Amino acid sequence: MSEKIVVGVDIGGTSIKVGICSMEGELLHTFEGPTEVEKGSDVVCDNIAKYAKQIVEESAYTWEQVEGVGIGIAGFLDIPNGIVKKSVNLFFDNVPLKAILEEKLEKKVLVNNDANVAALGEAWAGAGRGISDCVCYTLGTGVGGGVIINGKVVEGFAGMAGELGHMVIVPDLEAIQCNCGQMGCLETVSSATGIIRMAKDAVERGDRTSLSFVENIAAKDVIDAAKAGDEVAARIVTRAAYYLGKSLGTMAVVLNPQRFIIGGGVSKAGEFLFEQIREAFKKSAPAMAQEGVEIVPAILGNDAGVVGAAGLIIRS
Amino acid sequence: MSEKIVVGVDIGGTSIKVGICSMEGELLHTFEGPTEVEKGSDVVCDNIAKYAKQIVEESAYTWEQVEGVGIGIAGFLDIPNGIVKKSVNLFFDNVPLKAILEEKLEKKVLVNNDANVAALGEAWAGAGRGISDCVCYTLGTGVGGGVIINGKVVEGFAGMAGELGHMVIVPDLEAIQCNCGQMGCLETVSSATGIIRMAKDAVERGDRTSLSFVENIAAKDVIDAAKAGDEVAARIVTRAAYYLGKSLGTMAVVLNPQRFIIGGGVSKAGEFLFEQIREAFKKSAPAMAQEGVEIVPAILGNDAGVVGAAGLIIRS
Repeated sequence: MSEKIVVGVDIGGTSIKVGICSMEGELLHTFEGPTEVEKGSDVVCDNIAKYAKQIVEESAYTWEQVEGVGIGIAGFLDIPNGIVKKSVNLFFDNVPLKAILEEKLEKKVLVNNDANVAALGEAWAGAGRGISDCVCYTLGTGVGGGVIINGKVVEGFAGMAGELGHMVIVPDLEAIQCNCGQMGCLETVSSATGIIRMAKDAVERGDRTSLSFVENIAAKDVIDAAKAGDEVAARIVTRAAYYLGKSLGTMAVVLNPQRFIIGGGVSKAGEFLFEQIREAFKKSAPAMAQEGVEIVPAILGNDAGVVGAAGLIIRS
Repeated sequence: MSEKIVVGVDIGGTSIKVGICSMEGELLHTFEGPTEVEKGSDVVCDNIAKYAKQIVEESAYTWEQVEGVGIGIAGFLDIPNGIVKKSVNLFFDNVPLKAILEEKLEKKVLVNNDANVAALGEAWAGAGRGISDCVCYTLGTGVGGGVIINGKVVEGFAGMAGELGHMVIVPDLEAIQCNCGQMGCLETVSSATGIIRMAKDAVERGDRTSLSFVENIAAKDVIDAAKAGDEVAARIVTRAAYYLGKSLGTMAVVLNPQRFIIGGGVSKAGEFLFEQIREAFKKSAPAMAQEGVEIVPAILGNDAGVVGAAGLIIRS
């Protein structure tokens, strides 16, 4: 076999996930091994190189067929130079990841942040396949995102593009402070954390809701209660969907992407949530910026990171 | 001489402006002739071709040196196919401008809307020279704009990208309806029209302001009064700057451009306005998305359209 393959690496605090993809984005093979952050960045880098070589050896492919290795990592990065300036989870401090791994692997290595990489995965080989312009949201603990224009991730001047959770979208009168210091960020209402906070507030206020009987409320509890007809829970989910839809409206006039892709734990609420997002979007952008624009769920799940990391080699 | 040149055409309702640019964006020569909309689209197309050929003939260059002809036009366009679906000013209705002119000129022709083209002009050869990612605002009758990523204009799925004036930015409680039908668009407060409206409202309300003695208030009157210390006028200008700065904050987390370029009539207010925009921006985005980001005035003025049109040939 002489066709080329790309390798993607998704570095988490506990495990490193590695995958082989075809040049078309098909995930052919995956492997997961411990990160061993406690042993320091040299060992973590060794592990990355080891797992990457191992997965290819164990596959039907050879190392010669590897076009390059892409890496997704959480932290503050110098993307062009592939330097991890700071990664809190990994205890990385100015680690020249790209340079280290290019030496170890003797292949082209590209590094980008985990949110951008997951967005690229969906855009390249997931719910955005075949689409050149899309915007991805991940509704998890926070609200992450990635903007894809002409098939490529927009990184921004300081790598801060795609920080969609920090769009200020909640009006001052009902805004609360975000972890970033701003008031009214999208993340304060449309993340799992935001939904849980609103539910706890409702319970504390004494609102009549089935959530009063739930210990340690999770976002899923609120969504399930809303689906079951709990009005207080329904209002919370509607609020999360409303501000998300409103932010989509802003994106529509700024970038007019063909498709919005929404993933992350909260998105598992499914059509119940998506219908409300679409309804809010409809009211939040001029008709021409909405025409033909789709709002769809992400489809790669946890593979988005490793697929997108591999995609960096092709889409950079 | 054998070096290549590019020709830009800026089609207005009264006149067609044509310019020759070097491949580096230097405007070498311009010409302006009547559009003659009243004679119909065939004559307008003939005029465009005539002026384009004429300007090259009159210059030190030959038609063989022309790499291509770019055209900026106001209206609803099918950009990839260069079809003007509707241009109210020009009475164009499904005119295949690109095809017609490619036949007449025997050169590559690209068509794009006037706002995108003006933004590209500034980005390529004006206040954004040397910068790959920037966002341009034009504060005129409305608020127009253009988003430049990797040196190219983002057009969007239906050509609706860069409609920055229709970002919903004013909170519901103080929002008024925009011409587009939405409530609270940036254009309702940060355009000349918005400034004039706020001034007239203040006068009608009986606010103590020197503007009460001005007949037919223009945006410049409001800005001049604000500079002279009129508190009511100052509040209006601050409000226009505040919401603009806030929208810049949104752009900073979505795209993190290196530079914001602000042009159009209202921007002539100069540093008085820019200081207030910068102050509002500072409060409207996380510090990392602001670091090193500049907010600067446009420098090409009315030439931005013709330069940017020429730039389409190089930056597409």
